[in-house]
Amino acid sequence: MQKDPVARLPEYLEKISFELDRCIDFWFKHSHDEINGGFFTCLGKDGSIYDHTKYGWLQGRQVWTYARLYNSVKRFQRQDILEAAIKGAEFLSQHIKNKETQKCAFAVTKSGDPIKYQRTIFTECFYVLGMSELFKASNSDHFKQEAIEMMSTIVHWLKDDDSYLGNLALKSDKSISSLANPMMLMCLIDQMRSTIPEIATKYEKLEDECCLEILGHIQRNHSVVLENVSYDFKELSGCQGRLMNPGHTIEAGWFLLRYAELKNDNTLKNTALEIFLEATFFQGWDNENGGLFYFLDVDGFSPTQLEWNMKLWWPHCEAMIAFLLAFKETLDKKFLEKFDQVFDYTMKHFCDPEYGELFGYLSQEGKISMNFKGGPFKGCFHVPRSLMMCERMLNQIMDQGKNNN
Amino acid sequence: MQKDPVARLPEYLEKISFELDRCIDFWFKHSHDEINGGFFTCLGKDGSIYDHTKYGWLQGRQVWTYARLYNSVKRFQRQDILEAAIKGAEFLSQHIKNKETQKCAFAVTKSGDPIKYQRTIFTECFYVLGMSELFKASNSDHFKQEAIEMMSTIVHWLKDDDSYLGNLALKSDKSISSLANPMMLMCLIDQMRSTIPEIATKYEKLEDECCLEILGHIQRNHSVVLENVSYDFKELSGCQGRLMNPGHTIEAGWFLLRYAELKNDNTLKNTALEIFLEATFFQGWDNENGGLFYFLDVDGFSPTQLEWNMKLWWPHCEAMIAFLLAFKETLDKKFLEKFDQVFDYTMKHFCDPEYGELFGYLSQEGKISMNFKGGPFKGCFHVPRSLMMCERMLNQIMDQGKNNN
Repeated sequence: MQKDPVARLPEYLEKISFELDRCIDFWFKHSHDEINGGFFTCLGKDGSIYDHTKYGWLQGRQVWTYARLYNSVKRFQRQDILEAAIKGAEFLSQHIKNKETQKCAFAVTKSGDPIKYQRTIFTECFYVLGMSELFKASNSDHFKQEAIEMMSTIVHWLKDDDSYLGNLALKSDKSISSLANPMMLMCLIDQMRSTIPEIATKYEKLEDECCLEILGHIQRNHSVVLENVSYDFKELSGCQGRLMNPGHTIEAGWFLLRYAELKNDNTLKNTALEIFLEATFFQGWDNENGGLFYFLDVDGFSPTQLEWNMKLWWPHCEAMIAFLLAFKETLDKKFLEKFDQVFDYTMKHFCDPEYGELFGYLSQEGKISMNFKGGPFKGCFHVPRSLMMCERMLNQIMDQGKNNN
Repeated sequence: MQKDPVARLPEYLEKISFELDRCIDFWFKHSHDEINGGFFTCLGKDGSIYDHTKYGWLQGRQVWTYARLYNSVKRFQRQDILEAAIKGAEFLSQHIKNKETQKCAFAVTKSGDPIKYQRTIFTECFYVLGMSELFKASNSDHFKQEAIEMMSTIVHWLKDDDSYLGNLALKSDKSISSLANPMMLMCLIDQMRSTIPEIATKYEKLEDECCLEILGHIQRNHSVVLENVSYDFKELSGCQGRLMNPGHTIEAGWFLLRYAELKNDNTLKNTALEIFLEATFFQGWDNENGGLFYFLDVDGFSPTQLEWNMKLWWPHCEAMIAFLLAFKETLDKKFLEKFDQVFDYTMKHFCDPEYGELFGYLSQEGKISMNFKGGPFKGCFHVPRSLMMCERMLNQIMDQGKNNN
């Protein structure tokens, strides 16, 4: 018989704290480039480096993770963690950012020479994320200014002038609202609230707009969230229009849930719970093999992304956060049951009892498809963010339980 | 007991001709946009359209396929095939090509509005391929001029000025020789030889340079062909440097084999046979499940491409051409045995007895992973090119056999 998930709360907490410690040990031990600064992220199963390229997204994210741990988890309030975050931030401002254009490189060599720029805003967003959290940890005005300046550049690019995209960008691309942009901006403004609150206040209206844009992705009579829609919130034709990314939608769900809490908005809360979490989980879970699909087509066609049926670590990390937050907010056990389901799948399939951190990529059947712990898109971010948030929530839930007894 | 592959020659021929007919029927019946012109390529298992986006690579390639069939396979010398090729070429020159810049769109809407441009030369190369073959079929000077003009634009971009890449292109990217560029150019110049010979003559020196650049990808004491090397033919560090793409290398192998035949160059011939074909096949074949891996790392690390262990249709199409050509050139049975192995895997796993054409994407274990026949990267090209070339070679081999008896 399935154990009552409420009775498992201490077990979840213990496992999650244990994995968080191992995860941070792993990155601390293996990813620091003591010579050039910055972080290696192409790390094998045992932490050995299989490529020295440094990825802009992952540099900013690791700075954020270290600084957030320092700021919010007592046992990680260590000088060496703060110093590692500062060294990472220096690499970001000196090598990832082009000082003239503010454009950030997607990939640089280990010594910091640019290899590739993307025609998107994501590296720049993770730059803001890292810098703002580090300002809070270090109280150094330099990082605050870095965050504010880059934030205003991003908003300028999005609203006024996207020539940063490069001269092959095109009008027709811009008619599409993808879930990623408003999610990213909401995440940044939420981030500012706890680090540089005057900037959060400045962008309050933008945050509302982002929230509305995310809600505009709800389609087909409130039954589904689609990854791409038109700017007037109509379904787009073709694969792009039918695309679902369940992990991404569930992540948007917990963003919205936090925002609903802040605004005391019950309608938004219910939308987040019912559509972004419950309906999406129902649609995105692989009942045969377990795990969340990476991409689906709402009409059941084959997605054209070759990796559509793979199970990736990050959707599972996001789902753990989302369902635990939903349970904490509602105390409705059905959400804890979903957390339980994702927790068990994650610990069984992604965990590495030998070296710590999670594997990132499984086949549809749950077989490890790439045996590394970090790569061009997997760094020190989703796993520790999920584990630290879940640890905190589990403590809060259990404390609340004690107080109610 | 395994049947002697020489005894199977008539069986191969029969199956290949049968599949070629079904393949062309499939595209002819389902892919033509009678209203806007151009070809739909997002076609499901039964040919039904699941997306109306038109892809620049695949427009050029389908024009080439139709024109080549018209020019070289008697039963396809049909007026309706020539007309379909001409209509495709009109869509290419009117909608895929930007008349001011010559830059070709990677994707356009069904009515021809641009959606995306790539920072590469490939759409432009397939433009040349289609136009030059169609000139031969139609004898219309217009298509000849289109081919010549685009060819000279491509060479100008590659040699003098790559601002076409967009303003996010970067010096550091350019220090890498990827197998694709010299292969593509060699393919175009070879194409010119049979269609616009004066252009082939003009680019003779470039063709030699391309051949040398491809040979520069042979690394590690002549044991392996790597996808990316430096321009002075040294191994690059990291994943990029260690990357192998067996299907691509085998394709390069038959390009070299043709070139060796033209130049009467036995050393080149042996290099193509021993390294590009035999060694690569040995490294790239999945002994456990059958089929060629998509990507491998020469040191056995996990490639970072999520699809590394999938089995794609086109490497198998290329391997069929390569090993049959090798057998035809040498009459060494070991090459026919490899052809036999690839033929059997292909017909067993990729074929669709119900609707014709091949499926494109299998899991490592050989399960169909995407159930469509065409998509953003799979059109009317690799399958018919392989089948028409194999059909012709099988006829030649069997005729030769008869003459020798």
